[in-house]
Amino acid sequence: MEKIDSIKRRIYFDWAASAPCSEIVCPAPFGNPSSQHSEGRIAKQALEDARRRCACVLNVQPQTLFFTSGGTESNSIALFSSLTRPGKGRVISSAGEHASVREAMQTLEKMGKPCGQIAVDSAGRVTTQTFLKALSQYHDTRFAAVMSVNNETGAVTDIQSLTSCTGENKAPVHFHCDLAQAIGKINVDIQNWNIDSASISAHKIGCPRGIGLLYLRKPAEVFYTGGGQENGIRGGTENVQGAIELAKCLEAMNNIETQYIYANARWNRLITALCEMDRCTLIPKERTACDERFSPYILQAAFKNIPGEVMARALDDRGFAVSTGSACSSSSPERPVLAAMGIEEKLRIEGIRISQGWSTTDEEIDLLIEGITEVLKFL
Amino acid sequence: MEKIDSIKRRIYFDWAASAPCSEIVCPAPFGNPSSQHSEGRIAKQALEDARRRCACVLNVQPQTLFFTSGGTESNSIALFSSLTRPGKGRVISSAGEHASVREAMQTLEKMGKPCGQIAVDSAGRVTTQTFLKALSQYHDTRFAAVMSVNNETGAVTDIQSLTSCTGENKAPVHFHCDLAQAIGKINVDIQNWNIDSASISAHKIGCPRGIGLLYLRKPAEVFYTGGGQENGIRGGTENVQGAIELAKCLEAMNNIETQYIYANARWNRLITALCEMDRCTLIPKERTACDERFSPYILQAAFKNIPGEVMARALDDRGFAVSTGSACSSSSPERPVLAAMGIEEKLRIEGIRISQGWSTTDEEIDLLIEGITEVLKFL
Repeated sequence: MEKIDSIKRRIYFDWAASAPCSEIVCPAPFGNPSSQHSEGRIAKQALEDARRRCACVLNVQPQTLFFTSGGTESNSIALFSSLTRPGKGRVISSAGEHASVREAMQTLEKMGKPCGQIAVDSAGRVTTQTFLKALSQYHDTRFAAVMSVNNETGAVTDIQSLTSCTGENKAPVHFHCDLAQAIGKINVDIQNWNIDSASISAHKIGCPRGIGLLYLRKPAEVFYTGGGQENGIRGGTENVQGAIELAKCLEAMNNIETQYIYANARWNRLITALCEMDRCTLIPKERTACDERFSPYILQAAFKNIPGEVMARALDDRGFAVSTGSACSSSSPERPVLAAMGIEEKLRIEGIRISQGWSTTDEEIDLLIEGITEVLKFL
Repeated sequence: MEKIDSIKRRIYFDWAASAPCSEIVCPAPFGNPSSQHSEGRIAKQALEDARRRCACVLNVQPQTLFFTSGGTESNSIALFSSLTRPGKGRVISSAGEHASVREAMQTLEKMGKPCGQIAVDSAGRVTTQTFLKALSQYHDTRFAAVMSVNNETGAVTDIQSLTSCTGENKAPVHFHCDLAQAIGKINVDIQNWNIDSASISAHKIGCPRGIGLLYLRKPAEVFYTGGGQENGIRGGTENVQGAIELAKCLEAMNNIETQYIYANARWNRLITALCEMDRCTLIPKERTACDERFSPYILQAAFKNIPGEVMARALDDRGFAVSTGSACSSSSPERPVLAAMGIEEKLRIEGIRISQGWSTTDEEIDLLIEGITEVLKFL
């Protein structure tokens, strides 16, 4: 790899392309990767090295990965690319999608793009039955977006079973998968899942904000190319520092299976305790401890006669951070994902989301159980 | 300001919203600013504090500033908002705009939006004459995008003279201004310039990549809201760290006038020396030392019979980083901005861009002059 140290003295006269980072710790090369000079080439090499490292972890080709500003942008680039596709095909998405997909669907609809919804089962998953039903209802479907792990309930959709419905002998449907809550949590196999595009959020796996990944199996024409960076897929000066951090974080996620076992054991402990509480209802009700249909990192639960917001605030006062749902939808009190699962309104209002990570401990689980028990005494 | 230290122990169960930064130095609060718990509120406070600091430097109201991932995204949000505006107004932009605006115009045109171009003078500026001509040619104009400082030539457009043409008694035209090469370089007065929206790139002023600002005088309906963050203007989990760094960098730009004088003196030194070289032609030819029509941070010059790429490479070999034009357009050999200025093809091919910054010294200018002189002996 080219090193700037090997050149005796460098004099930088390309400030209009990018300025050196001032005051801030900025170990990544500061050059603009699109610049042709040494600083630019070194930055480009660092960026491509980060891309190769990400590709290695995700077991895909480096040229199929594009750095974006985050999961939301990755979803929007994929969905809006449907506007540039030839023909007038329809875009369908599951009723359980994250706000970034849901809002993109609304924009597409406003632009006159035919859209449609794929129903979810009572667990919040898309099944081959609901998927095939949507494909037959919307026979002109050319693009489908279904998330891997639901961000509100943790429901895991079997993506591979869905893509096998869009195979060669069927209608050519582009399959997009939001992997935000799947990467680093469950085993993801982009190639075997046979998905056409996928989005990855970096800050969910310990990376600073402002970086994410878009996987595109084949080159695509996107809605807006900007300055043509990232092979014309995502415009804007490349965030080299972010790309390096993302590669590091992805590499650190190398023990998913072991972590899964520990996470599952902790969730088992929590769910067992919650099920013993008279006023607690898991959402969906049929979720059990060690239920393989759900990710052991996310849990939705309701407490009788306590609105979710009140419960979250009471727990917050006691030192616990839980949420009522997706942070990205916190401005809206509605729970469209739970509604789509057929959850009754009362339970939707009472729902809170508890989610754990790699450093959560058994002790923290026990403290949470105690905390909830205590809150239930007063509310 | 709420402090997380004041709470004895915090237990985090909102990993699905955002995970703590692992291994990486991450001094900004890691919570998701959209979350309602303490971690979220602290992150929100830090974000709003950064917004207030930026607003103070830019002399605008905090609620008119929206954090984005960078200048390219700020431009695209502003331009694509024209798609959601009622009525069928036209969007016009100057022929000198950055690739991010130029590509957005092409996308708008593909979407069926009527578009048009504002001519630039031989210096690369939009004048009241060329602007009024465009407005009269395109009487249905409802949106105009004109940059402040041209990123290839440094030409400074008098924005205030243009917005006075779109006043109350005239057609209601939304005026967007790309400030990427203006902020920290020339005196910018967003309020007095009377612009409706503006974009600011952070990495040009020493900030890490992945953050930028969009100024919107009035609330706007945007093309895509994502998760509804940034008051519905820009979706995606907010980059709090980036926002804090941006506020710091903007505050560090507190001596623009003094820096301008020094930059001007250094440019005078360079331009005077270049004008003495037989084979050098400034672009445009009529540019002089201390020419107030141009920013003293950017210079475009051509060297007879040396393609710009060759010159840039020869200087790079000698330790100097210069470019042939905008880094964001480096994948395309065409120079549309220079062409729009009426620069002949031969000169366009020979053009290189030299740009300086706050830490450039007189000695570096002298070394560059020596470097160019040396290259000219061999090429």
